[in-house]
Amino acid sequence: MLFQVQMEVRIPHDVPVDRAERLKREERERAQELQKSGIWRHLWRHVGRYANTSIFDVGSAQELHDILSTLPLFPFMEISITALCRHPSSVHDGDQ
Amino acid sequence: MLFQVQMEVRIPHDVPVDRAERLKREERERAQELQKSGIWRHLWRHVGRYANTSIFDVGSAQELHDILSTLPLFPFMEISITALCRHPSSVHDGDQ
Amino acid sequence: MLFQVQMEVRIPHDVPVDRAERLKREERERAQELQKSGIWRHLWRHVGRYANTSIFDVGSAQELHDILSTLPLFPFMEISITALCRHPSSVHDGDQ
Amino acid sequence: MLFQVQMEVRIPHDVPVDRAERLKREERERAQELQKSGIWRHLWRHVGRYANTSIFDVGSAQELHDILSTLPLFPFMEISITALCRHPSSVHDGDQ
Amino acid sequence: MLFQVQMEVRIPHDVPVDRAERLKREERERAQELQKSGIWRHLWRHVGRYANTSIFDVGSAQELHDILSTLPLFPFMEISITALCRHPSSVHDGDQ
Amino acid sequence: MLFQVQMEVRIPHDVPVDRAERLKREERERAQELQKSGIWRHLWRHVGRYANTSIFDVGSAQELHDILSTLPLFPFMEISITALCRHPSSVHDGDQ
Amino acid sequence: MLFQVQMEVRIPHDVPVDRAERLKREERERAQELQKSGIWRHLWRHVGRYANTSIFDVGSAQELHDILSTLPLFPFMEISITALCRHPSSVHDGDQ
Amino acid sequence: MLFQVQMEVRIPHDVPVDRAERLKREERERAQELQKSGIWRHLWRHVGRYANTSIFDVGSAQELHDILSTLPLFPFMEISITALCRHPSSVHDGDQ
Amino acid sequence: MLFQVQMEVRIPHDVPVDRAERLKREERERAQELQKSGIWRHLWRHVGRYANTSIFDVGSAQELHDILSTLPLFPFMEISITALCRHPSSVHDGDQ
Amino acid sequence: MLFQVQMEVRIPHDVPVDRAERLKREERERAQELQKSGIWRHLWRHVGRYANTSIFDVGSAQELHDILSTLPLFPFMEISITALCRHPSSVHDGDQ
Repeated sequence: MLFQVQMEVRIPHDVPVDRAERLKREERERAQELQKSGIWRHLWRHVGRYANTSIFDVGSAQELHDILSTLPLFPFMEISITALCRHPSSVHDGDQ
Repeated sequence: MLFQVQMEVRIPHDVPVDRAERLKREERERAQELQKSGIWRHLWRHVGRYANTSIFDVGSAQELHDILSTLPLFPFMEISITALCRHPSSVHDGDQ
Repeated sequence: MLFQVQMEVRIPHDVPVDRAERLKREERERAQELQKSGIWRHLWRHVGRYANTSIFDVGSAQELHDILSTLPLFPFMEISITALCRHPSSVHDGDQ
Repeated sequence: MLFQVQMEVRIPHDVPVDRAERLKREERERAQELQKSGIWRHLWRHVGRYANTSIFDVGSAQELHDILSTLPLFPFMEISITALCRHPSSVHDGDQ
Repeated sequence: MLFQVQMEVRIPHDVPVDRAERLKREERERAQELQKSGIWRHLWRHVGRYANTSIFDVGSAQELHDILSTLPLFPFMEISITALCRHPSSVHDGDQ
Repeated sequence: MLFQVQMEVRIPHDVPVDRAERLKREERERAQELQKSGIWRHLWRHVGRYANTSIFDVGSAQELHDILSTLPLFPFMEISITALCRHPSSVHDGDQ
Repeated sequence: MLFQVQMEVRIPHDVPVDRAERLKREERERAQELQKSGIWRHLWRHVGRYANTSIFDVGSAQELHDILSTLPLFPFMEISITALCRHPSSVHDGDQ
Repeated sequence: MLFQVQMEVRIPHDVPVDRAERLKREERERAQELQKSGIWRHLWRHVGRYANTSIFDVGSAQELHDILSTLPLFPFMEISITALCRHPSSVHDGDQ
Repeated sequence: MLFQVQMEVRIPHDVPVDRAERLKREERERAQELQKSGIWRHLWRHVGRYANTSIFDVGSAQELHDILSTLPLFPFMEISITALCRHPSSVHDGDQ
Repeated sequence: MLFQVQMEVRIPHDVPVDRAERLKREERERAQELQKSGIWRHLWRHVGRYANTSIFDVGSAQELHDILSTLPLFPFMEISITALCRHPSSVHDGDQ
């Protein structure tokens, strides 16, 4: 089941630099792990912003929440979710 | 080059039914043609809305405009565009 | 899987009265059928508005879209969707 | 009498961790106590957000305010309230 | 129980004048009847707008909805509701 | 002359507790004094929010500003003002 | 007493041209009459918009409403009102 | 003096096609005339929208309004204006 | 050339009181100087807000920016600008 | 390929003055370098705001992101992007 997830990251300027760097490093590792597992299916940067559009392929809404809420940068993210489904004009069966 | 395109369709209720049906049929044909050519890379329906998220892979912003502005339902769409680029944490080279 | 669905109905004043009445009657029948099947789990009216908050229990996002997009009043609804999951402080197992 | 209550929690990053943890623990205890009493009838997490949708069953608007304004995390919540009533298409008598 | 109700009236210009006039006349009669009964406790016009702030004193949210949704101009109103309760600094007991 | 005043109070969490408590105590005293004088005609709490709807009866807009801008919590309030006048359907002469 | 009034005019395209022209002519006459009387103290066009900023000098909020709500174009205006008072740094006594 | 002008065109679907076509043709002629004169300095289409960003170089705000308000499509445009001036980091003297 | 300037002042509570007082004093002196010169033509306080509506009469947009961006409180202001011009119904020649 | 970039700069008041000054100096140097190279084609200040409208001419969306995200003031900017293309009424071939 696919969900579009848009994440906007806002780290306040008074968070210590080393803490911010550590969180970003951990975020990247977690993101790559989830991409390799096929759950975080797409990940694109928004030009000119500290933001991304992601497509997640999960078994349930619960699974999506468990993943997002444990992302290292979650406390500094504004997240918006759009549930997706197959478009009747889509030519891709596997694109759901 | 990838662009995220969100389309919201609003056909006023006083557009004649046959005109609306014809436009939708033509829209579907054009959408499938563009998907098969690889330009309209992804097309997902938003659950519960007459709306979609699409990913276009085009050579230029001009090409994207020429495609979108000639879609049969263009006069009844509210479109928002987000320019995308490769995310530094992406594991997919081809995902740009 | 639970989704919160908020529906706002806006029927333009120049829709013929008998068409509007027919659509409302069909909407009610469909809503009751879906409630009895357990899919449309809750349905509450917003005080002072032609709007409601609903909780749907569906097997997938696709199923939810198929239901919502075929509601008789769908063309006159503004719908917003929130994917729900179990709250860690919830005392109800069945409340997911 | 039912009210839909949507709570969004935003704890500033410079609130000491132990104070935040204590408030969350107290919030959870209070939430479970109110659920068991039947007042906090439903509690669902919004996927991907530190937010919830709740349904309260109270004797008056005053009672609702007294409950919400004494929640441990109240100073860090953005709350929006929607008064609910029985939907004419509801099949549940007890759903009001 | 008190609710603040803000009503904004928007009658499309192509509603026939006599229908609009009849609805306004019926709205006024209903409003005065409800004021005399003590339910529609206050009614103030917003300066420069076809809008008002009203305070209703009702036994339940259901009663409020039944009143508002049967107002003659209801189909042309945008209504927003705020549940009120006694302010701790209020000096009026009867003001709840 | 009546004005509707909506006040939303937001005290940052790093304002010292004793300063906040002192300001709230002074605010309450001032609010009660103004209510007794008949100027602050109504004061209702919004359910679930640190906010209120108030009705002021003043001789001029200048008088209203002088009162509001010297409230002890003024620096932490977001205030919105609506000028009111007599509604043509009102049954109360004194309600203006 | 001064009020800032911002008016945005939106005449639907299907209002007959002669009716629109008549309303505009009557609006202009009324506006000039009120300016000459000193009530409509300032009237400026917003560049590039069918909108204006006006300053009214009235004896009461009621008087302002009676004037605005009888302007010939009132049914096609979106009006927003800001109550003004003397600025403590103003050097003009008469500017209130 | 430079102004950034953003124009969004919305022609209702029930405007007769020949009227719309005539207005667009006249708009194009006027736009080209103003570009050639140097007043309409830049004109860019927004990708995927019936909208543009324009830069006007005019002698006064009055001149800008006289130009914009007589554009053939003005009644169907939503226009927003930003007054511009020389940026302290600009390397172009003539770019003002 | 006239511009409407709306200024909203928000001084964070942790700016030292003496710095804030000094800035306000300097702001007042500068505002009075500019009013006396005829550039800052009108200055009105918004009732109940730390905000004002001002009318500036300047030779160019550049001059306006140079004035506003050097106001002592500029770093704490949210400013919105509306370019004004003569209204066709204005009776004042000098009002432009 | 042209993109319109609007930048709003918000430096919190508790960023040390020398750090802010250094960042602004570096920003200016980088902006001038990019202007001289022809990439940052236009740069205009918004009157009365710490904001600008810029036009970038880049080979790809990726190039634009790489430039914007390494601007010294990027962490304190709110950036919005509009992809541009040739307007059919434009008289400038090179203006795309």
